[in-house]
Amino acid sequence: MAIYEARCRQVQQLLAEQGVDALLVWPSSDLIYLQGYPARPRPRLTLLVVPVDEQPIAVVPVLEAMRLDSLPERFFRAIAWEETDDPVQRTVAALGGRGRRAATIAVSDQLWGGFLLRFQAALPSARFVSAGPIMRALRIRKSPDEVELLREAGRRQDRALERLLESSMLGRPEIEVAQRYVDYRRQEGLEVEKLGTFGAGPGGASPHQLVGPRPIQPGDSVVIDGSATYRHYYADSTRTVCAGQSDAELRTIYAVVQEAQEAAVRAVRPGVTAESVDAVAREIIERAGYGDRFIHRTGHGIGLDVHEDPYIVRGNSTVLEPGMAFSIEPGIYLPGRFGVRIEDIVVVTDSGAERLNHLPRELRSVA
Amino acid sequence: MAIYEARCRQVQQLLAEQGVDALLVWPSSDLIYLQGYPARPRPRLTLLVVPVDEQPIAVVPVLEAMRLDSLPERFFRAIAWEETDDPVQRTVAALGGRGRRAATIAVSDQLWGGFLLRFQAALPSARFVSAGPIMRALRIRKSPDEVELLREAGRRQDRALERLLESSMLGRPEIEVAQRYVDYRRQEGLEVEKLGTFGAGPGGASPHQLVGPRPIQPGDSVVIDGSATYRHYYADSTRTVCAGQSDAELRTIYAVVQEAQEAAVRAVRPGVTAESVDAVAREIIERAGYGDRFIHRTGHGIGLDVHEDPYIVRGNSTVLEPGMAFSIEPGIYLPGRFGVRIEDIVVVTDSGAERLNHLPRELRSVA
Repeated sequence: MAIYEARCRQVQQLLAEQGVDALLVWPSSDLIYLQGYPARPRPRLTLLVVPVDEQPIAVVPVLEAMRLDSLPERFFRAIAWEETDDPVQRTVAALGGRGRRAATIAVSDQLWGGFLLRFQAALPSARFVSAGPIMRALRIRKSPDEVELLREAGRRQDRALERLLESSMLGRPEIEVAQRYVDYRRQEGLEVEKLGTFGAGPGGASPHQLVGPRPIQPGDSVVIDGSATYRHYYADSTRTVCAGQSDAELRTIYAVVQEAQEAAVRAVRPGVTAESVDAVAREIIERAGYGDRFIHRTGHGIGLDVHEDPYIVRGNSTVLEPGMAFSIEPGIYLPGRFGVRIEDIVVVTDSGAERLNHLPRELRSVA
Repeated sequence: MAIYEARCRQVQQLLAEQGVDALLVWPSSDLIYLQGYPARPRPRLTLLVVPVDEQPIAVVPVLEAMRLDSLPERFFRAIAWEETDDPVQRTVAALGGRGRRAATIAVSDQLWGGFLLRFQAALPSARFVSAGPIMRALRIRKSPDEVELLREAGRRQDRALERLLESSMLGRPEIEVAQRYVDYRRQEGLEVEKLGTFGAGPGGASPHQLVGPRPIQPGDSVVIDGSATYRHYYADSTRTVCAGQSDAELRTIYAVVQEAQEAAVRAVRPGVTAESVDAVAREIIERAGYGDRFIHRTGHGIGLDVHEDPYIVRGNSTVLEPGMAFSIEPGIYLPGRFGVRIEDIVVVTDSGAERLNHLPRELRSVA
């Protein structure tokens, strides 16, 4: 059975178990997962209808329909809507009787609210629920093929970052070096959507800093964070380096973050909870006196989305299982001064964790 | 009054007129329009709450809060939520009494459905409606400053496309030339998200073709379509050229599309309907016998979104007004053989239309 047919049958089994009559899949990572179909979110509605008991139906704009031939492994039949049709009504028709009784319809979490409101109005007796838990159950454990794609994404990102760290940064504007990192990753065959987070000195003290024109100065810590995709699977990693000579305070804080990151990675194995891994990193940073400067969770799941389940955060009692993939990225941020973060992606194995990023984690000086 | 304060007060006036208690603005073009805030759609909720009667409130993840300082003209106060908070509950709290009675709450059309379902569950007595009509009323007529940004986006796109047309294409794979066009646009300071539509020969016969590896061959018509942004405002244009010598059939069809495009642009002026402009282009193509090969609308509005109101399509009786900006892009597609499309952005002026793309529209041969 081809991969997308198998995935659709899995999702249909979950729909049946949970009493859901149909799933509406929005152009998103869910659609790529279920059909390998990289349609984009647009006002011109594209939607995959997965009835619990029948082959899926894609409702697509007529001028996208021609390119469905580029999806040879797809497992759906297509309904093409014309420019003057109402695609919401075409979708309701595709649902058939499933929408008209008191049905339960699950929708992609990313489905645009404007469309959800129109579906709710068109099917007033139906109950709409989030498809999040169903898609999460399918996607949270990566298959060996998916892990290999994450691994390849990580390898390419590592190569681009190593090249960046060997290039010259001192005196250059943050934005120029950030763009250089984008270029290097594109040259590695990665797709890069945005500049990412690149902060030198005070810019590194805000974990999601906008990249600015400030030149990188001697002694700056430089936080280099970026995500990119390889065949739709994400790489995401962070290294913090020092431009020129580091001072004692940076070295001290760096050592704490490094210890926290190493310890959290070592804590990853099947059977422990996500929050327990967060606690390992947090306790080390708290013990060093920087607990209130570690202002974000320890990590996030990764796959077809850069942020997905499981989140490595207090309150998340999800038990880790082989195949789960997520970041381990503790950090310490001194507002107005500097920040330090170290991030690798890891995959849970049968006995521990495999790292997907391999650049050295010692404090490195760059020129 | 600063621009974003003025826009927020305009939206609040519309909320009051329509009996809406609050507007929830998702990271989208709406948020850029109202606050110049280019937050991205993420599972970590960022949302602007615009109460009808009070200064807006942004609910932002704590690690995004620091970068709000990069928005000096913003007109909101911020509530930062911590990693272990529930941002939906923080938003409900920000709504105060406005959510608890039988309120009407408008939401951005692009708000993720998963969040909308959570808001509906948290505020069961509230009525949720699309903010689309309200935002449309504000955004459909561009201000002179907005028109200048669209104009600049068009100029830069034109320069990049001219450079592409002067470069060598024959024998090169579609995807290589498409990537070259992306590079040229980035060198013009445009942000380019995707490869766009680039189809040679049969590839040009599908209006939203995925770009492929096929080399461009002598006699191919080559449809080159792409969108890109300058300071968040979109350029979008299409030229169809011939690789080497054109044959009589291509010249004939090209002449029909060119005539339709020219006539539709000439038909644009205040007081006429969107659908009447569509009809002008469609009648010319129908009269030439290709009506069933013009399978899409004549155009789409453009601004902070690449596709927005007004749509130039049958059934849209919107009356054109000065400041409205949209594409005029008729096309003819012969499946499996080739396609022709010509697209310019136009802005409605007091007496007609100003084109924002200026490359020649004669059939051009490229090497």
